Amino acid sequence: MSNKDGRKRVIITNVGPQVEEGRLPARRAIGESIVFSADIFGDGHDSVAASVIYKYESDQFWEQIPMQFIINDRWEARWTPDKIGLYEYRFTGWVDHFTTWKKGLVKKFEAGQDIAVELKIGAEILREAAGLTSGENASLLAGSADSLITATDPQWAVDLAISDDVANTVSTIRYTDRTTVFDHTFELEIERKKAAFSSWYELFPRSASSQPGQHGTFRDVINLLPKVAKMGFDILYFPPIHPIGEMKRKGKNNSLTPSDTDPGSPWAIGNRLGGHKAVHPELGTIEDFVELVENAKKLDIEVAMDIAYQCAPDHPYVKEHPQWFKWRPDGTVQYAENPPKRYEDILPFDFETQDWENMWQELKSVIDFWIEKGVNVFRIDNPHTKAFGFWQWLIGEVRKSHPQVLFLAEAFTRPRVMERLGKIGFNQSYTYFTWRNSKWELEQYMNELTKTDQQYYFRPNFWPNTPDILPHHLVEGGENAHITRLILAATLSSNYGLYGPVYEYGVNTPHPGKEEYTDNEKYEIKQWDWDRYSRTREIITRINTIRKQNTALQTTWNIEIAETDNDMVMCYLKSDPAQNNALLIVVNLDYFNTQGAHIKVPLHLLGIRYDQPYAVSDVLSGEKYYWQGEYNFVQLNPYEMPAHIFKIETLN
Amino acid sequence: MSNKDGRKRVIITNVGPQVEEGRLPARRAIGESIVFSADIFGDGHDSVAASVIYKYESDQFWEQIPMQFIINDRWEARWTPDKIGLYEYRFTGWVDHFTTWKKGLVKKFEAGQDIAVELKIGAEILREAAGLTSGENASLLAGSADSLITATDPQWAVDLAISDDVANTVSTIRYTDRTTVFDHTFELEIERKKAAFSSWYELFPRSASSQPGQHGTFRDVINLLPKVAKMGFDILYFPPIHPIGEMKRKGKNNSLTPSDTDPGSPWAIGNRLGGHKAVHPELGTIEDFVELVENAKKLDIEVAMDIAYQCAPDHPYVKEHPQWFKWRPDGTVQYAENPPKRYEDILPFDFETQDWENMWQELKSVIDFWIEKGVNVFRIDNPHTKAFGFWQWLIGEVRKSHPQVLFLAEAFTRPRVMERLGKIGFNQSYTYFTWRNSKWELEQYMNELTKTDQQYYFRPNFWPNTPDILPHHLVEGGENAHITRLILAATLSSNYGLYGPVYEYGVNTPHPGKEEYTDNEKYEIKQWDWDRYSRTREIITRINTIRKQNTALQTTWNIEIAETDNDMVMCYLKSDPAQNNALLIVVNLDYFNTQGAHIKVPLHLLGIRYDQPYAVSDVLSGEKYYWQGEYNFVQLNPYEMPAHIFKIETLN
Repeated sequence: MSNKDGRKRVIITNVGPQVEEGRLPARRAIGESIVFSADIFGDGHDSVAASVIYKYESDQFWEQIPMQFIINDRWEARWTPDKIGLYEYRFTGWVDHFTTWKKGLVKKFEAGQDIAVELKIGAEILREAAGLTSGENASLLAGSADSLITATDPQWAVDLAISDDVANTVSTIRYTDRTTVFDHTFELEIERKKAAFSSWYELFPRSASSQPGQHGTFRDVINLLPKVAKMGFDILYFPPIHPIGEMKRKGKNNSLTPSDTDPGSPWAIGNRLGGHKAVHPELGTIEDFVELVENAKKLDIEVAMDIAYQCAPDHPYVKEHPQWFKWRPDGTVQYAENPPKRYEDILPFDFETQDWENMWQELKSVIDFWIEKGVNVFRIDNPHTKAFGFWQWLIGEVRKSHPQVLFLAEAFTRPRVMERLGKIGFNQSYTYFTWRNSKWELEQYMNELTKTDQQYYFRPNFWPNTPDILPHHLVEGGENAHITRLILAATLSSNYGLYGPVYEYGVNTPHPGKEEYTDNEKYEIKQWDWDRYSRTREIITRINTIRKQNTALQTTWNIEIAETDNDMVMCYLKSDPAQNNALLIVVNLDYFNTQGAHIKVPLHLLGIRYDQPYAVSDVLSGEKYYWQGEYNFVQLNPYEMPAHIFKIETLN
Repeated sequence: MSNKDGRKRVIITNVGPQVEEGRLPARRAIGESIVFSADIFGDGHDSVAASVIYKYESDQFWEQIPMQFIINDRWEARWTPDKIGLYEYRFTGWVDHFTTWKKGLVKKFEAGQDIAVELKIGAEILREAAGLTSGENASLLAGSADSLITATDPQWAVDLAISDDVANTVSTIRYTDRTTVFDHTFELEIERKKAAFSSWYELFPRSASSQPGQHGTFRDVINLLPKVAKMGFDILYFPPIHPIGEMKRKGKNNSLTPSDTDPGSPWAIGNRLGGHKAVHPELGTIEDFVELVENAKKLDIEVAMDIAYQCAPDHPYVKEHPQWFKWRPDGTVQYAENPPKRYEDILPFDFETQDWENMWQELKSVIDFWIEKGVNVFRIDNPHTKAFGFWQWLIGEVRKSHPQVLFLAEAFTRPRVMERLGKIGFNQSYTYFTWRNSKWELEQYMNELTKTDQQYYFRPNFWPNTPDILPHHLVEGGENAHITRLILAATLSSNYGLYGPVYEYGVNTPHPGKEEYTDNEKYEIKQWDWDRYSRTREIITRINTIRKQNTALQTTWNIEIAETDNDMVMCYLKSDPAQNNALLIVVNLDYFNTQGAHIKVPLHLLGIRYDQPYAVSDVLSGEKYYWQGEYNFVQLNPYEMPAHIFKIETLN
C-alpha cells in the first residue's frame, strides 16, 4: 500500500474475498450475498470508518456500502448484487474525527468536565463537513455547528451532537484528503441464478429408443422430456453427440476388439462425417437437435452439451490441422497414454503447438456454434488435461458476449487443480462428494467448500454416480444407498446431478476390480422401460419438488452443520432468513440399520428461545412434531426413509 | 497471472512468504534460513519442475534454487542468504518433458513394450536441450541424444536416459519459451545478526550514581558497564536522555503536584535547554554520552536510545513549529488524552498537519543525529500512536544509508496494529509474552509467532518487566517468578530484555490497583547497591552464557513444542542441526511447588532411534542423565531451579 499523501493514516489489509490476491474475480450468482471484509485501523486512539465502494463495470459512478466493525480491527459489509456481469469493488477507510470527538465529549460530560472548548472543536468538525457537501446536508451540518456554540444547556448540546440526524449526515461525507483507498480494485462476477441452483439429469440419447435393438434418436429424447420434467430436473445433459471415430474404435467394456456393430464411445469424437460441429447421423440431424432443445425449454429444461476437446484418429482436424497434434518419429500421431497404458482411440491436442492461437480460435468456434443452436450450458470433459490459460481465455471470451453461458468442469483430480479451474472461470465443478461417505468426511468437506474463500470461486455440483464412476457404496448399499446418496447430494449442494436411468433402477454391477459399471453404456446401446416403477425415482421426484419449494436449498453457502451423538446420523441446517425458510435435515448414513440420535438443534441460528416450543414438519413424510429446547431424538429406518427434511416453524 | 504466451502451461500460486501480498519485504537475519513455497502444477500428466530465482538488489544476474516437490502440488526450497540488504526473488515453473519422457520410458521398458520410437523421442528432447546451452553441457546432451538412437542394447539406453549426468545437465537448462514466471517479484530484507539475537538491559542513567541522593551521570554508567557486561547483556538501553519539560511536570507516582526537586519523567521531552537532539544537563554532555557509547562498544555492548516523538509543553518545537501541533479553540495546544483522562505534560505531534513533509524530515534528522553519535539501535516509544506511513518512510530512508540500524517497536496494543509495525520495517517488537503465563497460552503464542508468516515480519523481543509494567505474577511469585520468567524469555525468544536493577533485586511492590511499580523510577531518582548479592542475577548471568554458547538459542524460529503430561510443566526443543546443537528445555510454571512430569522427547526431530540411548546434560545445573525412548520423567523444585536446559548428545 503506497500512500503518496502522508496524511492518510488508515491502514487497510487482509481484504476479502480475494481470488489469487485479486488477480481473478470472485463469483456469486444472482440472489447470493457477498461478505466483504478487511482489517482496517489507524494509529492512536482515533475512531475510524470504512466503506466498500463498487460499481457495475460499465457504470461511471461508485456506490458506497458502509462497513461495520466486527472485532479485533475486522470490518465487514454484506451485499447482494442484482445484475449479471462484472462489478468492481474497492476498500476505503478514513479517520473519523467526528466520532472520536463525540465519544470524548460524552465521556467528559459524564465526568463533569467543562465542555465549552469541546463544543467549539465539534463545531469546527461539523463546519469542515458542511464544506464538503451541499444542499440540505450542508445546511444541517452548518446549523448544528452554530447550535453547538450558542447552546446554553450543555445537555442539549450533547444531545444534538449524538443525534442520529447529525451522525447520518456526517456518514455521507467523503473526506478524500485523508481517505485511504486500498491499492487494488477487485472484480466480482455475477452469474445467472442457474449457476447456483440446478438439477442435472444425464442420459445417453442413443439409449432413448422405446424399441429394443433400435438406436435412439433426438426425437426419442423429445418423447422422454415429459418424464424428465416430471422427475423435476431442469438440466438435461448428453454425452457427446458427434460422429464417433471408426479407427481404433473400442468395443463393449472398453475392449480393443470391437465387433462390426459396436457403436463405439461417444467421447472418441469425429470421423469422415465431421467433428465437433456435426452430429452423429444415427441420432438425427442438427435440426432435430435444435427442436429437442426448444421442446426442452418449454418444459423449463435446458439441454447441456458435452465438450470433449479430443479427436478420434479419423477426426477431420487431424488431416486439416496436423500441426495441432504431436507427431511421433514413426510418423503417427501421439495418442493419449498413462504409461504403460495406451488410449489409441483418442488423440489429444498439443497445447504447446506454435499454432496455438489458431487452435484456440477454432476450439472456441465449437462453443459459438452450439450457442447459436440454443445451448447455454456446457459440461467440459477433462478440462484439467488442457492448458489452464486456454480455458481462462475461452470462458472469458465466451462470457463477454454471452454472459448467460455456464461451464461445468468435469475434473476429478487433485485439489489445487480443481480449485484452479474454478478460479479461471468454470461456474460449476464435479467434486469429491462421490467418495465422501462418513459423517466426518462430509462435514469436513462441506466446511471446506462453504466456509473458506473457495465459496467465491469453486461451486460444487454433487453427483452420486456418473457413467465413469460406480462408487463402492452404491454396489454394497443397493437401493437404500441410491436413495440416501441422492438426498445428500440434493440437500448438501444446490447443484446436483444423476446419471440415469441406471440410477433409478439401481443398476450396480461393477466391472470386476473397478469402480465402474460393467457393460457400460459408454460402449453399447441400452434400452430402458421408463414405465417400470422405481422407488428411487419417486423419491427423486419428491426431493426435486422440495428443492423448488424451499429457497433454503437453492444456494450452497448457507449450510450449518449441527451436532448429533451418533456418527451414523448427520444433521445440518439450511436456511434463508430473507424468505423465512429454514430446513433441518437429518440423514441416516447407515444403509442397512435403523439409527437413532439426539440432534442438537441450533436454536441460536434460528432465533428460537430455549423455552419456546416450535414445530418441525417433515416435508418428505408429511409428519409433524412439536419440539422444545436444543436436544431432540430422531430415529430413521433406511428401508422406510433414510432422512427427515424438517421445515422449522416458530410458534409463539 | 497473465500468460501472454498460450504455450506456458504451468500455474504458480499461493506463493510464500508473502508480506501484504508482496507489497512489503519479508525479513530474515544473517544466518537464518528462509523457506520459499508455492503450489506449482500443470495440466495433464506431464512432470513439472520449478525453481526460485533470486538476486541481490544491486546484482545483475539471477541465481537459481531448484524447488523440491513436497506433497499435493506443494513445492519448497530452503535458502540461507549471507549478505545484509535487499534481495529480490521470483518463482518459476515449467513442464519438464525430459522427466515425463524418462518416467514413461522406464514403465514401458519394464512392461516389455518396444521402446525404439520412445528413444527417438528422447533424443529429440535432448537435442532441443543441447540447443539451449553451450560448451560441455551441449556436447554431453547432443552426444547422449546420438547414443540413444544408435544404442543396440535397450537396457543400456534406458540406463543412459536415467543417469544422473544427463538429469543434472538437463536441470540447468532454462526453457524460456515455456517457463511461467510468477507475475510479482518479491523482496527479502536481510538484517544483521543482532536483529535475531540480542540481550537487552534497561536502566535509568540518572539512578546510576553510587552516591545516595546524587543525580546519576553518563560517567557513572561508564563505571557500571563492566557489571552489565559480566551479566552477559549486549544491548544497554536508556529511557530518553533529553532535557525534561518543566511545564506541567509530573511528581512522584505520576502526581500532578510535583515538588520543586522532582526530576520529572524522561518521556516529557524538551525544555528551554533543547529537545530531541540535546541531553539533560545533569546527565552530562553529548561528549560524555559518546564516550559512554564507545566504552560500551569495547565490552561488546551497544547502547540503545529511546526515541519518543512527543513534546513537553516547553519543548522548543512548540514555538518553532506551531503548525506541527493541534491547537484548540482556546489557544492552547492539544495535549494527549484518553477521555476523560488527560496527559497535560505531553503534546503529541499532529500527523495530519499540512506541513507533514517538513515534520517528517525533522523527526528523521533526530535519528540521523544520534546515528552520527554512534547509536545503531533505537527503541521507539509508542510507535502505534504515530502514522504508519511515517514509520515506513523513516525506517526505509534510514536503512537505505545505514542498513545496520535496528528499530525496536514499543507497542503494547492490538494484534493487527503490532503486526503492521513489523511489516513496515521494525526489526523487533515488544510482545504479549509479558502476560502469557499458562502453558497453553505460551504454546499457542509461540506457534503463532514462529509457525505462521508472522516469522517473516514480526520478530519478538520478550520482556518479563518494563518500567511501565509490573505484571501480577512477578508480584505474587516473588523471586521464583522472576527467575522462571527470565528463563522463559531468554530461551523462548532469541531476543529478550529486562528492566533492572529492580528485576535482580525483586522489587515488586505494585501501585495500588495497577500493574505498575509504585514509587516508579520514571518519576524519581533511585540509588542501587550493585554489589549486593542477587540469586536472580546469578541465574541471568548463567543464562546469558548459555545463550552465547548454544547457537540453537540464537534464533527464535526453531522452536518445537514437546508434550508433557502436566499442565504446569512446559517443554520445548530448540535445535540448530547445522551446528549439531540441540537443547531440550523443561520449565516448571508453578512458582511455589515442585512439579513432576513425563515429557515426550521428540526423537524423530533429533534423528534418535527409539532403541538408542542418549545423554541429556543440564547446562544450568551441570547434571547429566542417560535416557532412552520418548517418555522420560523430570521433576523441578522452583526454590532450587525451575528449569532444565538439557543439551542432547546422541550416543552410538
